[in-house]
Amino acid sequence: MFIADIRIKLKKGVADPEGKNTLKAMELLGFSQVSEVKTSKFFSVRLNTDDESDARSQVERMCQNLLANPVINEYSYELRPEKEA
Amino acid sequence: MFIADIRIKLKKGVADPEGKNTLKAMELLGFSQVSEVKTSKFFSVRLNTDDESDARSQVERMCQNLLANPVINEYSYELRPEKEA
Repeated sequence: MFIADIRIKLKKGVADPEGKNTLKAMELLGFSQVSEVKTSKFFSVRLNTDDESDARSQVERMCQNLLANPVINEYSYELRPEKEA
Repeated sequence: MFIADIRIKLKKGVADPEGKNTLKAMELLGFSQVSEVKTSKFFSVRLNTDDESDARSQVERMCQNLLANPVINEYSYELRPEKEA
């Protein structure tokens, strides 16, 4: 089994209001050295396959068809074998 | 300058409806080998300090006071020096 750690970021230039508001809140709380906050979304997906290239192609399709919006998002991921419990 | 990559996860046992719905959507799209989806939140924070232990203590305070809800979240982070542009 594999776990895919998928990160969905906003493309460069796309507005990130949540990040902007988090930055504002940090400033109000006295964190004066923070100059930028960017947010992104993270999915950990467990795949019941032992074939790494199969897992990789499934993750690619997931990102393209469901998780990422190609207009505003870019995605990256890491695959790791799941440790047996 | 440092960039802190902060990940805010749900604690074990806390409901993750977004993850559950994403799993359902994947099944509907034909991804039959997915058995679990967990979501989490990611913040990249740029800190204008060159003192790593100072950066680390600021990030700890941010997580505890603003980014993570101690009832349902746990946080982890990595600090990396920012490459000069």
